[in-house]
Amino acid sequence: MIKPQTLQGFRDFLPQEKRMRDWVIKKIIEVFEKFGFEPLETPTLEYASVILGKYGAEADKLVYTFKDLGDRDIALRYDQTVPTARILAQYNQQLPKYFRRYQIQNVFRADKPQKGRYREFTQCDVDIFGSTDALSDAEVIACTYFAYKNIGYPTLKLKINDRSILFDKLANFATEKVSVLSIIQSIDKLNKISQDQVKNELNRKGLSLESAAAALESISRATVSPNLSEIITLTEKLGVPKDDIVFTPTLARGLDYYTGMIFEVNIPECGANSLGGGGRYDKLIGQLGGLDIPAVGIAFGFDRMVESAEELGLITTKNLSTTILVTVFDTSLTQLSTSIAQSLRSADIASELYVNSQDKLDKQLKYADNKGIPYVVIAGPDEVKKGVVQLKDMKAETQEELTIGAVIDKLATKGTSFS
Amino acid sequence: MIKPQTLQGFRDFLPQEKRMRDWVIKKIIEVFEKFGFEPLETPTLEYASVILGKYGAEADKLVYTFKDLGDRDIALRYDQTVPTARILAQYNQQLPKYFRRYQIQNVFRADKPQKGRYREFTQCDVDIFGSTDALSDAEVIACTYFAYKNIGYPTLKLKINDRSILFDKLANFATEKVSVLSIIQSIDKLNKISQDQVKNELNRKGLSLESAAAALESISRATVSPNLSEIITLTEKLGVPKDDIVFTPTLARGLDYYTGMIFEVNIPECGANSLGGGGRYDKLIGQLGGLDIPAVGIAFGFDRMVESAEELGLITTKNLSTTILVTVFDTSLTQLSTSIAQSLRSADIASELYVNSQDKLDKQLKYADNKGIPYVVIAGPDEVKKGVVQLKDMKAETQEELTIGAVIDKLATKGTSFS
Repeated sequence: MIKPQTLQGFRDFLPQEKRMRDWVIKKIIEVFEKFGFEPLETPTLEYASVILGKYGAEADKLVYTFKDLGDRDIALRYDQTVPTARILAQYNQQLPKYFRRYQIQNVFRADKPQKGRYREFTQCDVDIFGSTDALSDAEVIACTYFAYKNIGYPTLKLKINDRSILFDKLANFATEKVSVLSIIQSIDKLNKISQDQVKNELNRKGLSLESAAAALESISRATVSPNLSEIITLTEKLGVPKDDIVFTPTLARGLDYYTGMIFEVNIPECGANSLGGGGRYDKLIGQLGGLDIPAVGIAFGFDRMVESAEELGLITTKNLSTTILVTVFDTSLTQLSTSIAQSLRSADIASELYVNSQDKLDKQLKYADNKGIPYVVIAGPDEVKKGVVQLKDMKAETQEELTIGAVIDKLATKGTSFS
Repeated sequence: MIKPQTLQGFRDFLPQEKRMRDWVIKKIIEVFEKFGFEPLETPTLEYASVILGKYGAEADKLVYTFKDLGDRDIALRYDQTVPTARILAQYNQQLPKYFRRYQIQNVFRADKPQKGRYREFTQCDVDIFGSTDALSDAEVIACTYFAYKNIGYPTLKLKINDRSILFDKLANFATEKVSVLSIIQSIDKLNKISQDQVKNELNRKGLSLESAAAALESISRATVSPNLSEIITLTEKLGVPKDDIVFTPTLARGLDYYTGMIFEVNIPECGANSLGGGGRYDKLIGQLGGLDIPAVGIAFGFDRMVESAEELGLITTKNLSTTILVTVFDTSLTQLSTSIAQSLRSADIASELYVNSQDKLDKQLKYADNKGIPYVVIAGPDEVKKGVVQLKDMKAETQEELTIGAVIDKLATKGTSFS
C-alpha cells in the first residue's frame, strides 16, 4: 500500500476550507462582474518558450519545466500575466480594444516551501489592457475597493502613490553606485522598519547619511501629482469614500515594472502587510514578448484574504455548511424521509439525507453535530400520525414540533450556502 | 519574438466561452449544494506513486510524469477518483462517515488530440462514499437529474440498470473463450449499433450465433431487480418523475469497476451519446490502494454539457455579457459618466465604463456592439441640463430618454450575469 501523502508545498482543501475559498471567490467575482470585468482561462501547460526568460534567471529557476512524450519543452503556469500577454498577441483582433479581464487560476513555483508559501497557489488578477486614460486606473481601484468591501472587512484603506513622484523626488539623490530604483526599494520598507533603519540601509548601499535623510525628507514633503489627482477624483466619483484613499508618497511597491499610479490594500485589522496591490504597468506586456499594450491592474492576495476573512469571522456558518440533516427514523420510514428531503430542497434549502436507514437516531444526530450541520429534522411514527416533524436546532439544543411548511418558512429566511 | 501559441490539445477560454463554462458550473453547483454535497480540491501535482499503476499500463502511458528539482517522481492529476481515494485514506478520521463530495477540477492526459478530445479538460464528479444503502444511490441519481434540469434541458431521461442483472442473465452464455465482461461490453453497444451487428461481434469473439441471439433475447426479457426497484422508488420520492427513469436492461456502461446500479443521462436533443453516467462501485476505492470503502457516483460530461447548452440556446445573453456600457460624451463630462456608472452598479447592474474619454461616441457604440453589450447609456450637455440620460437598446436599435432611476428600474428586472 502506497503512503497517502501530498507533495511538500501542495495542499488538499477539505470541504470546510474549500467552501471558505469558494465563498471569497464568489464575493469578489460578484463585484468584478458588476464592474464589467470578464473571465479568462488559460491552460496549465504552455510551451516553455512562452514562460521562460520573462522575469530573469532567478524567476526561471522557479518554473516547473519538463519534456513531454513528444520531446516538447513544457512549463507549468508560473503567473497569469505572461499567459495574458500571449493571449493579447494571439487573439489581438478578436479581443475588445479595452480588454478588462479577471483571472483566477492556480500557479506553480518550485520554491522552498515555508510558512505561508506554497508551490501551487491561487492567483487572482484584475486588469484593463489598452487604455492609458485615468478612467482605467480609477475603474481598477474602485473595483478593488468594492471587491474587498464585499468580503465584509470593517476597515479598508487604499494607499496610493505615483511612481513618477518617487522618480522626480529621488532622481537627484541617485549616484553612480546607488540607482533611483535601489533608493526606492529601501524607501518601500518604511511601513515595516523605522526611518533610521531605512537611512542606515541607504548608507550601507552607498549614500551619505545626510543624503539619505534628505531623500526621506524630500519624499515626505511630496504632494499629489496632477495625474494622480485626476485618478483620485474619478475613484471618488465611482463611490470610494475620500477617507479611504490615502496618498502615501513613500509607497513604492517592490516590483520594478510599474510606470505610473501604484496602490495597495490595507486592512488595519490584518496588520501592516497589504492584502493586495497593483498599479499601472505600460511597458511590461511589450517586454513579455507581447504587443506594446498599456495596462493597469491589481493582484489580490487570495490566501491572505481567505485566512483573514476566517479570522475576522466574516464567513458565517450558513456559508460553510449544509443547512439541515434529514434523519431516517427506521427502515420502514425511509420513503417519508426522502419526501421530506424533496420538500426542503424544492424550497431551496440545502439538505442532506442521511444515507443509512439502519443507524440509530443518536448516531445520526452525532453525525450532524460532527459535520456542524445547524438543523436536524426527525420524523417517527408519532410525527407521521400528527402530520408534523421535529426540528432540532443543534446549537441552541432546542426542539420544535412543526409542519414541513413551517420548517421551510423558518429556514428559508436563514439562507443557504449557494444563494 | 516568440510565436504566441498553445500546445496542441490545450485550450484558451476567452470571456464568452469562459462565461458559458462558469454558468454551467454555477447551475450544477446550486443543485449539488442543495443536495448537501460538499466541495473538495486536491493538488494538480502528486507523487507519481499515488497516480500510477491504478488503471493498468495503457492508462499509465497517458499520465503526464516528470522529475522535479528534488528528483521526486511527479505526476499531473489524471482523474479525480484516485486523489479522492488518497484523501479517504489520509484524512479518514476527519471526514464524515458518509462523505458526499463534488469535485470540479482539470485533469491531464497525454492522449492523441482529436476532435472533442483534449489533453487538459474539466472533470466534474459527484459521489457518496461509505454507504451501501439504496438511499445513497437514490441521492446521487436525483441530484444528477436536478443538476441537468437546472441547466434547462427540455427533455431528460435517465437510463438505469443493475450490473447484477447483466451478470445473472449472461453468466450462462460465457465460455472459456468469452468472459461475461466481454459479452457485456458488446451488449453495451446496442444504443449505437444494431442487434445484428452486436450478434456478429459476439460471434467473432467466439460465441455461436445461436448463443449470441439467446443472450440478447435473455437480456431483453430481464426485469427490475429488488435492489434496483427500491432505488427507483426512492429516486421518485426524491422528486424525479417516473417517466424520466427508464429501466434499460441492455445498459452496461463500459467501465469494469461498477458493482451494482448503473445509470446514464440521455438528452434526446443531443443525440444518442450520454451526457454523463455513473453507478455503484464498491470495490474500486479499495483497489486504488485506499481503504475498503463502498461508493456510488456520477461523472458529468462537462464539455458536452457546455456545448449542448450553447447549441440549444439555454444560456441567455444576460449570462454572457455585461448589461450596459456607460459612454463618456467628452473629456469635460468624464465625472458625470463615473457617477452614472456608480449609480448603476449600486443597483447591482453590471456596467462597463468606457475608458477613453477622447474617443468619439460612434466609436464607443461600435465597441458595445462588438462586445455584444445589450444597452448603452449616453449623457451629453443636453441631458445634463434636463437631468436625464439616453438609454440605447442595441438589439432593438431604439433609444429612450430616461432618468437614471428609470434606467435602473428598467434594467434591474433584466438581471445580470452574476445574480
